[in-house]
Amino acid sequence: MLAVIFDGTLKLVHDYPVPELRPGEAIIRPHLTGVCNTDIEITRGYMGFRGVLGHEFVGTVVACHDETWVGRRVVGEINAACLNCPTCLRGNPTHCPNRTTLGIDRRDGVMAERFSLPISCLHPVPESVSDEAAVFSEPLAAALEIVDQSHIRPTERVAVVGDGKLGAMIVQTLRLTGCDLTLVGRHPERWELYTKQGITCQHSQDVQSAAGSFDVVVDCTGNPKGLATARQLVRPRGRLILKSTFEAASQINLTMLVIDEIQLIGSRCGPFAPALRLLERGLIATAPLISAEYPLRDGLQAFAAAHGQMKVLLRHPD
Amino acid sequence: MLAVIFDGTLKLVHDYPVPELRPGEAIIRPHLTGVCNTDIEITRGYMGFRGVLGHEFVGTVVACHDETWVGRRVVGEINAACLNCPTCLRGNPTHCPNRTTLGIDRRDGVMAERFSLPISCLHPVPESVSDEAAVFSEPLAAALEIVDQSHIRPTERVAVVGDGKLGAMIVQTLRLTGCDLTLVGRHPERWELYTKQGITCQHSQDVQSAAGSFDVVVDCTGNPKGLATARQLVRPRGRLILKSTFEAASQINLTMLVIDEIQLIGSRCGPFAPALRLLERGLIATAPLISAEYPLRDGLQAFAAAHGQMKVLLRHPD
Ligand SMILES: [Zn+2]
Ligand SMILES: [Zn+2]
Ligand SMILES: [Zn+2]
Ligand SMILES: [Zn+2]
Repeated sequence: MLAVIFDGTLKLVHDYPVPELRPGEAIIRPHLTGVCNTDIEITRGYMGFRGVLGHEFVGTVVACHDETWVGRRVVGEINAACLNCPTCLRGNPTHCPNRTTLGIDRRDGVMAERFSLPISCLHPVPESVSDEAAVFSEPLAAALEIVDQSHIRPTERVAVVGDGKLGAMIVQTLRLTGCDLTLVGRHPERWELYTKQGITCQHSQDVQSAAGSFDVVVDCTGNPKGLATARQLVRPRGRLILKSTFEAASQINLTMLVIDEIQLIGSRCGPFAPALRLLERGLIATAPLISAEYPLRDGLQAFAAAHGQMKVLLRHPD
Repeated sequence: MLAVIFDGTLKLVHDYPVPELRPGEAIIRPHLTGVCNTDIEITRGYMGFRGVLGHEFVGTVVACHDETWVGRRVVGEINAACLNCPTCLRGNPTHCPNRTTLGIDRRDGVMAERFSLPISCLHPVPESVSDEAAVFSEPLAAALEIVDQSHIRPTERVAVVGDGKLGAMIVQTLRLTGCDLTLVGRHPERWELYTKQGITCQHSQDVQSAAGSFDVVVDCTGNPKGLATARQLVRPRGRLILKSTFEAASQINLTMLVIDEIQLIGSRCGPFAPALRLLERGLIATAPLISAEYPLRDGLQAFAAAHGQMKVLLRHPD
């Protein structure tokens, strides 16, 4: 089958083996898949991954031992957990030490004509949610992890540093809390959507005067300079939420963290059910975030075009 | 007056100027003062402090415009805040940007015949609490900051890394929560007190097998190696509480923090009222923690002896 893979080099291949149906899993035909910064990081060596790329998708189940799934339109969680270990049994399957991760860690991803995922990872998509919206479920769930981990009060002053793809999901979920929200970024050409939504937007060059004034700051820049800006903005006893994964260890002054009693909160994958509810309620804008769409066979062009862009989608053959 | 000072060099001086009584402050004659690791760090250049050292004390108010304070036996908070700024008015005076800090930052400390502190920092000592116990109020309050910041559940597995002076206060407060508590250290000769209190003690060389198994880990080692051990012990989605201040920036792998969704919690000064309540209720052992006592005039010997020891006290002249 056709697939976009990484085997040390990013490649389009035509003869990738079709996945076999395994117990407890479903074979899915993706309709649309999304290019995420993590995919780009992987093509630079992150996680040492080899195989089919991609983890953002909406598709149809085409084969499953449980027939009730066949024909359903689904999105899916990316961590395939064992559901048996102490971590899983404590309700933390996304941290299962035995997990594989779709298109990231020892499990082929979604940028192919077919892929396989445990049915425990699947979520049926409500009819009113279009494919073009549903394909944002995964990054939207990751954004919702923030409010699942930490109580963001409507009275708090919150800054999101990073106006990229993940920042777009994060500001749109945080605005729903009623908090006093500022997006700090470097791309004013992207801000019209947010200012219309009542979100204050500021250039990262212009936030020096706001140092130490935010109760909560989210870093989703993916670079150490953005993290430094985020750290500057948070007040003593405030929370600094980390959404960026870097390839290298980052430096942070831990003594100042102690003196200012900052809480650093690492945040990764999130809950899909509320993501689908927000999409169904029309509370998250997704269409303006789509920069370009390519057919799967032009996957390499899609990756080349995705650098520094908002969401680039791949449309898969029927 | 007699004073132990740091002016680039640790010194005992006989002619230090007696502090003048300022509005809102009290002049205190210390009975006992304690040598803290921060004092030792200051003599190595930490905070760039110059002046009288020391911030752990119990003493008597000898002068105050508010006569009701005169003659009272007191302990005191070390941060002299403005009580007027937005940070103070939000209830965070220990983070006041205008604060001075006793014996640490632009305010003479306690290792002298007299010192001055705002009355808003003072706490009368209950009669049943001896001077030898009350002098532990400040580090005990710092230990209680942990449970004031973070809900430690009785069902949680908690490790304290560091069996020094601050660790002694921290394990004794955490044991009161009912949690499953392990002290990780390098000084088995200090552990008898803790094992008698029902605390598991383990050498840091022997904890490899417990990696990733603690819900909450507190680092109070004061060195990067201890922090690395603490990081290893915490489970995914667990909390890592930082009580150490280092002179230099420390390295921590922030990507792993995100992937494991660890919460890093910086923790510094804490509440005195509950510290005094615990001492009054006899729930914290302090006598076994006293390594040595010196008269104030032998302050330099006390500092020389304090390295690698438990609590070294200075007894002040009447
Ligand atoms: Zn992603
Ligand atoms: Zn598991
Ligand atoms: Zn201290
Ligand atoms: Zn203040």
